[in-house]
Amino acid sequence: MKKFSSEIELRGHIIDSLILTKVFDGIMDHGGSFEVLDIQVGKKKKDESYAKLLVIGKNEKNLDRILNYAYRQGATSKTQSDVKLNAALKDMVMPDNFYSTTNNQTQIFLKNKWVDVENMMMDKCIVVKAKKATCIPIRQIKKGDKIVVGENGIKVIPPERPREGMNVFEFMGSSSSSERPTQHIAKKVAEDIRLTKKNGGKIVLVGGPAIIHTGASESVSTLIRHGYIDAVLAGNALAVHDIEYATLGTSLGMNVRDGTLAVRGHRNHMEAINTVFKAGSIEKMVKTKKLTRGIMYECVKKKIPFVLAGSLRDDGPLPDVITDVATAQKEYKRVLKGASMVIMVATMLHSIATGNMLPANVKVIVIDINQPTVTKLMDRGTWQALGIVSDAGAFLPMVAKEL
Amino acid sequence: MKKFSSEIELRGHIIDSLILTKVFDGIMDHGGSFEVLDIQVGKKKKDESYAKLLVIGKNEKNLDRILNYAYRQGATSKTQSDVKLNAALKDMVMPDNFYSTTNNQTQIFLKNKWVDVENMMMDKCIVVKAKKATCIPIRQIKKGDKIVVGENGIKVIPPERPREGMNVFEFMGSSSSSERPTQHIAKKVAEDIRLTKKNGGKIVLVGGPAIIHTGASESVSTLIRHGYIDAVLAGNALAVHDIEYATLGTSLGMNVRDGTLAVRGHRNHMEAINTVFKAGSIEKMVKTKKLTRGIMYECVKKKIPFVLAGSLRDDGPLPDVITDVATAQKEYKRVLKGASMVIMVATMLHSIATGNMLPANVKVIVIDINQPTVTKLMDRGTWQALGIVSDAGAFLPMVAKEL
Amino acid sequence: MKKFSSEIELRGHIIDSLILTKVFDGIMDHGGSFEVLDIQVGKKKKDESYAKLLVIGKNEKNLDRILNYAYRQGATSKTQSDVKLNAALKDMVMPDNFYSTTNNQTQIFLKNKWVDVENMMMDKCIVVKAKKATCIPIRQIKKGDKIVVGENGIKVIPPERPREGMNVFEFMGSSSSSERPTQHIAKKVAEDIRLTKKNGGKIVLVGGPAIIHTGASESVSTLIRHGYIDAVLAGNALAVHDIEYATLGTSLGMNVRDGTLAVRGHRNHMEAINTVFKAGSIEKMVKTKKLTRGIMYECVKKKIPFVLAGSLRDDGPLPDVITDVATAQKEYKRVLKGASMVIMVATMLHSIATGNMLPANVKVIVIDINQPTVTKLMDRGTWQALGIVSDAGAFLPMVAKEL
Amino acid sequence: MKKFSSEIELRGHIIDSLILTKVFDGIMDHGGSFEVLDIQVGKKKKDESYAKLLVIGKNEKNLDRILNYAYRQGATSKTQSDVKLNAALKDMVMPDNFYSTTNNQTQIFLKNKWVDVENMMMDKCIVVKAKKATCIPIRQIKKGDKIVVGENGIKVIPPERPREGMNVFEFMGSSSSSERPTQHIAKKVAEDIRLTKKNGGKIVLVGGPAIIHTGASESVSTLIRHGYIDAVLAGNALAVHDIEYATLGTSLGMNVRDGTLAVRGHRNHMEAINTVFKAGSIEKMVKTKKLTRGIMYECVKKKIPFVLAGSLRDDGPLPDVITDVATAQKEYKRVLKGASMVIMVATMLHSIATGNMLPANVKVIVIDINQPTVTKLMDRGTWQALGIVSDAGAFLPMVAKEL
Repeated sequence: MKKFSSEIELRGHIIDSLILTKVFDGIMDHGGSFEVLDIQVGKKKKDESYAKLLVIGKNEKNLDRILNYAYRQGATSKTQSDVKLNAALKDMVMPDNFYSTTNNQTQIFLKNKWVDVENMMMDKCIVVKAKKATCIPIRQIKKGDKIVVGENGIKVIPPERPREGMNVFEFMGSSSSSERPTQHIAKKVAEDIRLTKKNGGKIVLVGGPAIIHTGASESVSTLIRHGYIDAVLAGNALAVHDIEYATLGTSLGMNVRDGTLAVRGHRNHMEAINTVFKAGSIEKMVKTKKLTRGIMYECVKKKIPFVLAGSLRDDGPLPDVITDVATAQKEYKRVLKGASMVIMVATMLHSIATGNMLPANVKVIVIDINQPTVTKLMDRGTWQALGIVSDAGAFLPMVAKEL
Repeated sequence: MKKFSSEIELRGHIIDSLILTKVFDGIMDHGGSFEVLDIQVGKKKKDESYAKLLVIGKNEKNLDRILNYAYRQGATSKTQSDVKLNAALKDMVMPDNFYSTTNNQTQIFLKNKWVDVENMMMDKCIVVKAKKATCIPIRQIKKGDKIVVGENGIKVIPPERPREGMNVFEFMGSSSSSERPTQHIAKKVAEDIRLTKKNGGKIVLVGGPAIIHTGASESVSTLIRHGYIDAVLAGNALAVHDIEYATLGTSLGMNVRDGTLAVRGHRNHMEAINTVFKAGSIEKMVKTKKLTRGIMYECVKKKIPFVLAGSLRDDGPLPDVITDVATAQKEYKRVLKGASMVIMVATMLHSIATGNMLPANVKVIVIDINQPTVTKLMDRGTWQALGIVSDAGAFLPMVAKEL
Repeated sequence: MKKFSSEIELRGHIIDSLILTKVFDGIMDHGGSFEVLDIQVGKKKKDESYAKLLVIGKNEKNLDRILNYAYRQGATSKTQSDVKLNAALKDMVMPDNFYSTTNNQTQIFLKNKWVDVENMMMDKCIVVKAKKATCIPIRQIKKGDKIVVGENGIKVIPPERPREGMNVFEFMGSSSSSERPTQHIAKKVAEDIRLTKKNGGKIVLVGGPAIIHTGASESVSTLIRHGYIDAVLAGNALAVHDIEYATLGTSLGMNVRDGTLAVRGHRNHMEAINTVFKAGSIEKMVKTKKLTRGIMYECVKKKIPFVLAGSLRDDGPLPDVITDVATAQKEYKRVLKGASMVIMVATMLHSIATGNMLPANVKVIVIDINQPTVTKLMDRGTWQALGIVSDAGAFLPMVAKEL
Repeated sequence: MKKFSSEIELRGHIIDSLILTKVFDGIMDHGGSFEVLDIQVGKKKKDESYAKLLVIGKNEKNLDRILNYAYRQGATSKTQSDVKLNAALKDMVMPDNFYSTTNNQTQIFLKNKWVDVENMMMDKCIVVKAKKATCIPIRQIKKGDKIVVGENGIKVIPPERPREGMNVFEFMGSSSSSERPTQHIAKKVAEDIRLTKKNGGKIVLVGGPAIIHTGASESVSTLIRHGYIDAVLAGNALAVHDIEYATLGTSLGMNVRDGTLAVRGHRNHMEAINTVFKAGSIEKMVKTKKLTRGIMYECVKKKIPFVLAGSLRDDGPLPDVITDVATAQKEYKRVLKGASMVIMVATMLHSIATGNMLPANVKVIVIDINQPTVTKLMDRGTWQALGIVSDAGAFLPMVAKEL
């Protein structure tokens, strides 16, 4: 055995998912080399593959760095050592060299056992308490918390590329394009929604006000009424536009029915906000029959949770809006717990925010007419998203019709 | 009367259409001044307004320039002088100081009479032959042709802004936005198509290959079959994709039915091209029953003209394609003659080209998912277009369903 | 005098600024009619124009509606009646029929005198206290506040279109396009900045993290150091990227120096955040010499105010970030007070938020590579903005070089 | 040995370049299976790797299909059989089952020897004459030409991913984004241009009229004058705008110097066209000193070839424009021969057209402000392109300054 070398193993769909390639690549990028000691490639798509490599570094530090990289890709070592933990010296301060998480499923090697990290999110740290590992954001760190540092004893399980099955994710990879058969995609999305619900899955909708502008409000209301949506995450604008439309028929003063501008319609936006303040809350508006249709109405009627997060550009904002973004993040995260599918429509802010909170194995569908928006979400780490470059006002009615 | 001054008159919907404002503005921009001698504003929308102004220039040349500007906006003078004509000294060469046309209705003052210019297009010149004035492109000029020079004796009649009626153009002005009620717009476009046909109008479709990619082929085929489309202007790509889809079910190798990639599908594009070459032409393919569905098929069956203009990026191109762009322009122009509505879908090249050939009073609807494309068409002079930022694959089926 | 008629007057640059046209138009749109009793058009650009119209309504209510419309456009009446005030019945609830503001300069007729409304913003209400009228957002309303209702006694003074002078706004109108001479525009923007500062004006920068990504950080730092920027409004991301770049040389793990990815660079973003938490604040980082360059550093050194507004997608966010958006709005507004020019770079969220707080007479320059972003800002009411579709990383260095 | 099985070999940078992964993947996608008989991974980046696989099909046809797929990826077989050739039955008609090319380097197995295919382009066929294999477009096929059919005996050599070196392509992969350090990229592009010329490489510029609009004309002129550009491929618009700017100072009537609109500037575009017709050609304009600056001027002076391809939207077009697109394609192809680098600026039509003619080993840099344009070029097969989402008017001056 060479001086600065170590054996690592990789298991799973390491071929399809490009994991093996990434490991080969990474070793060389770090200036190391390797020998393939064993390789067995799964004969069928569902079979796992296996590889054993001897990794050789230029020196101990280099080998360490290479191994850390490999572990992040899902490699493991027989001579696995425990994860290292350092205490936080202050509230909201991570120890030096803290481990920064990805959104992939992660395990830490703790007292000779691989332990799952819970509440997985990207760009957070891992705190260990009573043999339990949890992913937490910096503002929730308390002095004395044991935080994972370095890269040892950490295993990242990258999601394996889906290969067979019936869902819309298959045929498009994770790329986005406006040059796709729209009606077919709408049908596939509808099938996926139906299948997810049939299997007891939870579907969360993240939406922007363009849903109302483009006339897709009825479609979304219908989806909620029929039980396809389990929670709605949005901002002030979606709710205000929805209520303006439900009570006055306009969206920012434009009659959604026929696209004309309403007389004195510029007031309607503020009028809608005032009506909610008068009632006290959206729920009270529904209870007092001041609000009798639309997305927010259906949420209240169906008793599904909705979270309205404040943003700097809000008018009002409505009494229901959580104006503190740190609190809103917590509420979003709470509602997202257990979600198996998230549908993001026409809102970059809420989509990226939600993407940041999701483990990589949650299905994400993002619909936007602006291709750079879709690309940006995926570049920001939510690479598993299926990007659909289409017009919400035309696409959502197609989906609704199929359900 | 002041030294360098002249009386001009304006008549028509000069208030609504901002013509009066532009004239006021232009006089001042050119350094002149004016007095309002008379102004009568139409009481009802259909009433015409009238204004008489005394325009004062700094000197004779300045006054001339101002008057020329005003005439272009539709002003007239009682002391109108004849248009000036110079002979072309060579084929394809305009005389110096030639008058460059707009796409607005134009008249020239010839032997004491206002004469309509025929075949109006933008950025061309006006040739006069036997008391007839015609707009022609530079390459059609023959040595000795009498060409209008200078700006005297020319009246431009700017289109008046539509105010009342039932068509889709009204409620949106000529701006474009993705934030519109899509379903409603689709309905309005359908109504407009129906009304145009009812009134005996001619509708021309200008389309790009995204119609096939996005799965809107059936919708367009249906529109043709039911007589809503009188001619199709396109390029090689639309025809090739259409025939690939009709014969092999794919568009650039992607199964349009379900979005998957066909085995060895990369060949299908070239296979479709080869099939047409084998048959000799698209029409022969239809006659020999090698082509039995799709947009090109419907054109042949319905005996409506289609023109396929060549472009530098063509594969093939098909035998039916006119590879000489100057010839293709003539064919486009010939087919556009008498059109009352032009629908442009997902092709910047053919849309701008067609826009260049259209007088400003032809209704233009442009549908594209990319907002800058829509904006660019309008910036390039086809300002009368109604821009719809939507997904062809979702929008066209909505229109077809309404018809 | 006719039964339901009233004389109104208009004064100012009512021709250039299309105000007269809008009034003519609006009267007819509302079903009324009018006679032009007098019209005097300013002979020179700086001269004011004047018009006296007799407005005729179909009935009293119709006349009222027309007059309200005309008043909003800046018309006045000799028989002006006082503004109507109703008391707020609850905190944060406006009285019915409240007047919803525009971002134009506004006056109310109070005790026979026109009184300026202070703190002008769009989509707010007007509260009157001790003869003083102030524009306030709904959440600041206290029970009993006297709020303006209806449309009587309100005069809106629309900004007059700039005609002569030396600034960049002139030659482009308020449209946006990527087809402009970039270097020239950069020079004009630089001139405008210099002139604004020379005249004692206040310049506020609103910026997004792409400033750092695209390598324009040094340019902005230079502008601040040389006193061209009086305040910075941003979010968490700009500050984090700036500090990541200043301390680690990367932006989201990419070496800005050469565009390569840093080893273990994915941590750098979180590392930068942790460093600020460790120091306690950005200012403390500067004081302890942990932060020695970059945009935030220059702000602290130059003692110019910066406000970091929280957003749902924040990592961290930094201790300096105001996580409550209602509070952040107040701070933004406070800092914007007295601004004569606002430069918005590559951030839709903060740009629209800022636009909402600005009276229409503040110069706004918005620079973004994505045309729809620029268009959206202007559609959302900040129509006075000069939109520049360019690349921040190339444009800002050009501006900085000129200063 | 199993019944329907065959041994294949793969050699080269098959790990880095994902070739091995694609082969594993493709075998399974086609329903086959495989055993890894041998695998040797290059220890250093420059070392080649090697793999020997036993491929097993479900039946003979299935095995064939899998092998064909593998051969396209660069696999070879020891029992290699000759390529199959069928005669074209007519001019411009390929035999059934013709082999459709990629833009990768390709060899055919002919009389027991691997023969390079010359003039490689995508979506064409291969004709064999006197032991020489050449890639030709359909319209150049003559009756009786021997055309490659099927997939046997064909080896595609996919380009290997660049790993080490000094060029701009490395750090960005082939993705495109506006979030890159612009100044650094400009510097890298300049270095690459310098290095290419130093090594005797040929650089071709493909450009659109936005070069003139955005004020980058001087930068491009300078590049040509200093010998950095060996040929210019464009359309009518670039030349007309260039000549309008060179002779009248405007681009579509806008003074490029300061962005204002010229008086009667709408004529300038047509005036420029007329001037060229008067002179007879661009070259004659230069010779008679009617054209003394700009891009076209520098081309003539420097005696580098330029090709202006006609398009349907051309005004004029100029006498120098090749109006037949099939002829223009041939001229483009002729000029591109031997190019080592192609720089595409702000023109989708000419960029995609040029991309279609280039073998995959030619470096392509594409600069456009609209991200979808960049993406589309790469999706259409020119995947090797380096996409730079920036503003030509700001980016090109930066590049020119570095040279």
